[in-house]
Amino acid sequence: MPTVSKRGEIMPASPIRRLAPLADEAVARGVKVYRLNIGQPDVPTPPAALEAIHAVDRTVLEYSPSAGLLSLRQKLQEYYRRFGIEVDVDDIIVTCGGSEAVLFAFMACLDPGDEVIIPEPAYANYMAFAISAGARIVTVPSKISNGFALPPISEFEELITSRTKAILICNPNNPTGYLYTPAELMQIRDLVKEHNLFLFSDEVYREFCYTDAPYISAMTLPGIEDQVVLIDSVSKRYNECGIRVGALITRHEKLKRNVMKFCQARLSPPLLGQIVAEASIDTPADYMRSTFMQYLQRRNFLIKALNKIPGVYTPMPMGAFYTVASLPVEDADHFCAWCLKEFSYNGQTVFMAPASGFYTDPGLGRNEVRIAYVLEIPELERAVEVLAKALEAYPGKNV
Amino acid sequence: MPTVSKRGEIMPASPIRRLAPLADEAVARGVKVYRLNIGQPDVPTPPAALEAIHAVDRTVLEYSPSAGLLSLRQKLQEYYRRFGIEVDVDDIIVTCGGSEAVLFAFMACLDPGDEVIIPEPAYANYMAFAISAGARIVTVPSKISNGFALPPISEFEELITSRTKAILICNPNNPTGYLYTPAELMQIRDLVKEHNLFLFSDEVYREFCYTDAPYISAMTLPGIEDQVVLIDSVSKRYNECGIRVGALITRHEKLKRNVMKFCQARLSPPLLGQIVAEASIDTPADYMRSTFMQYLQRRNFLIKALNKIPGVYTPMPMGAFYTVASLPVEDADHFCAWCLKEFSYNGQTVFMAPASGFYTDPGLGRNEVRIAYVLEIPELERAVEVLAKALEAYPGKNV
Repeated sequence: MPTVSKRGEIMPASPIRRLAPLADEAVARGVKVYRLNIGQPDVPTPPAALEAIHAVDRTVLEYSPSAGLLSLRQKLQEYYRRFGIEVDVDDIIVTCGGSEAVLFAFMACLDPGDEVIIPEPAYANYMAFAISAGARIVTVPSKISNGFALPPISEFEELITSRTKAILICNPNNPTGYLYTPAELMQIRDLVKEHNLFLFSDEVYREFCYTDAPYISAMTLPGIEDQVVLIDSVSKRYNECGIRVGALITRHEKLKRNVMKFCQARLSPPLLGQIVAEASIDTPADYMRSTFMQYLQRRNFLIKALNKIPGVYTPMPMGAFYTVASLPVEDADHFCAWCLKEFSYNGQTVFMAPASGFYTDPGLGRNEVRIAYVLEIPELERAVEVLAKALEAYPGKNV
Repeated sequence: MPTVSKRGEIMPASPIRRLAPLADEAVARGVKVYRLNIGQPDVPTPPAALEAIHAVDRTVLEYSPSAGLLSLRQKLQEYYRRFGIEVDVDDIIVTCGGSEAVLFAFMACLDPGDEVIIPEPAYANYMAFAISAGARIVTVPSKISNGFALPPISEFEELITSRTKAILICNPNNPTGYLYTPAELMQIRDLVKEHNLFLFSDEVYREFCYTDAPYISAMTLPGIEDQVVLIDSVSKRYNECGIRVGALITRHEKLKRNVMKFCQARLSPPLLGQIVAEASIDTPADYMRSTFMQYLQRRNFLIKALNKIPGVYTPMPMGAFYTVASLPVEDADHFCAWCLKEFSYNGQTVFMAPASGFYTDPGLGRNEVRIAYVLEIPELERAVEVLAKALEAYPGKNV
């Protein structure tokens, strides 16, 4: 039998999805599983988005342009303007989810062996796309003790080599919920400018910032206008993860042209998703506000409740809808699997994402999990209770 | 400004789409452009597929499973059975179009520097996906003079090195319309078996075979059951190219697991497209028959009409909805651009894909074009007339 590629062998299985079969088995045993593992919001998709599906009156579901529907790109341009992001329509390239935007950014900016520096913990799939592109991810650890703030910029500088091509940030951050401060963003700007790097900035959670601190897009940082590649997605803000519509935004002319070659190779982004996304951008402010308020209340409830469990600590996330918590266990991978395989409390258990999948350094985050607050408060309340009971019962507890 | 990747620089612009701006300019000048360049069928999408969109009653457009909706995979299993392809549901992985299936096949089977042998002319985007994966495409030329039949198998054998990992075929073929014979397929089977290679088989045009010769799937070839990777797409058979739903099918257990890692990294294929695809599989036989008959009549008309133009030759394609024609010009790239930029006849011109984009050898196919018969016969008739007039008027004509 022919052998598979080394690339596929070294690619890690998704930390979010690799325990899914255990969760399915628990459900099959009749256990109620609280799914805190994945950023799949339970909030309804905007009515206008669902109506747009029903209003489709085409007779041929044809290819859309490789860069995406012009009308969608124009709407996105207006949308970004609300956040102070001024770009041309041509700077906006529609992709199959934020995932494809990351892949194409890596493919068009990085060659095999090139390096990207990322503060960790970080969204696990960046690593997968880097492996696809043959690029190397180099990480700077952020710390739960200071709420996962930007690590000292000197730690980035120490890692810069002749192969360093980019810095990647996610702001507001998945998995930590951290929102970079204006001062931190200026430090990143200076670093990127001095070393002539790309700045990949994943800002898909911009609608979810819960404090008075401002969300500042990397696209607005002065002096690096041509160096920023913005990664965006409509998935989270309109609760339509399944439609697979995102965007790559850059003002770098050459990069734009080359990204378009990757776009042309895969022909077009999903047509129906684009129709839905376009309708979603007009979602009334009260829907957005109501979604926002739900997450805010959930966050406030969850963080307080988690910190009441003996031995559990989580900082207060400022954005997105995740938090990273440290648990009184040696090995959160084992604990999360144990919760699904061996534990239940009143017929219930919890499904969390072990944080190890968000770190490249195998020594880091061993006792941490990522929790997505994508359930309503009464469900979150029960999930936290079940987690507390699980920690009491867990034989591997670190006392 | 940071420099872009070499990978993106060497990637060719799509031969199908790179002339699109010239076509748009012609349209803007008021010229009617007959678009023969791209496999975008004009045939309506099946009514059941369009109804499925209107029947969507979900309140959340959530992620689907990374391997695709189970119900769709089950339908696909039944569908493949009609063609003698017996696979488990787990062997079927739903992708974002056939494009993603090719990319994931390359990523999971090939490492940088690995080689795939492909008869050319070949679908241009294979090259793009190979560049993405860092793999090398090695080509064996097929010839217009024998209808683009499989080249002698000895020519493949001569190219096999320690880095050769796979053979790729497209059957029925895009761009040539050739359908491999049972004897040719057995030769390919023997080669693949002897050298322990993967066989990537792109069979998205299986519904369109116009002669009495049988379509034989590579998945049914005996003795290489675990070596075949089938590439599929619903785009062409149901005229729904825009929904972006394809599939990668393999019985190779390890490969399946590794492809799934790439699938998990991009989270899920498009949800709405999958709903449409699932409904399409039940399309009544009379719709499929009617589409088939339209293509058959167009093929018969087009090939005859093209061969009547002085200096033009095209073989009779046995499948798909393309043909490659040789023209009495030195440089079909120049001629195709000239048709869009400088020529019109009674306010009309033609948009064809220069065949050079389907060859890697720069010396081959210089005077050839690919023509997609995706217009109705009266339009094809006018398009051929315009082509004949263009050849008469073209200053670079090779007499």
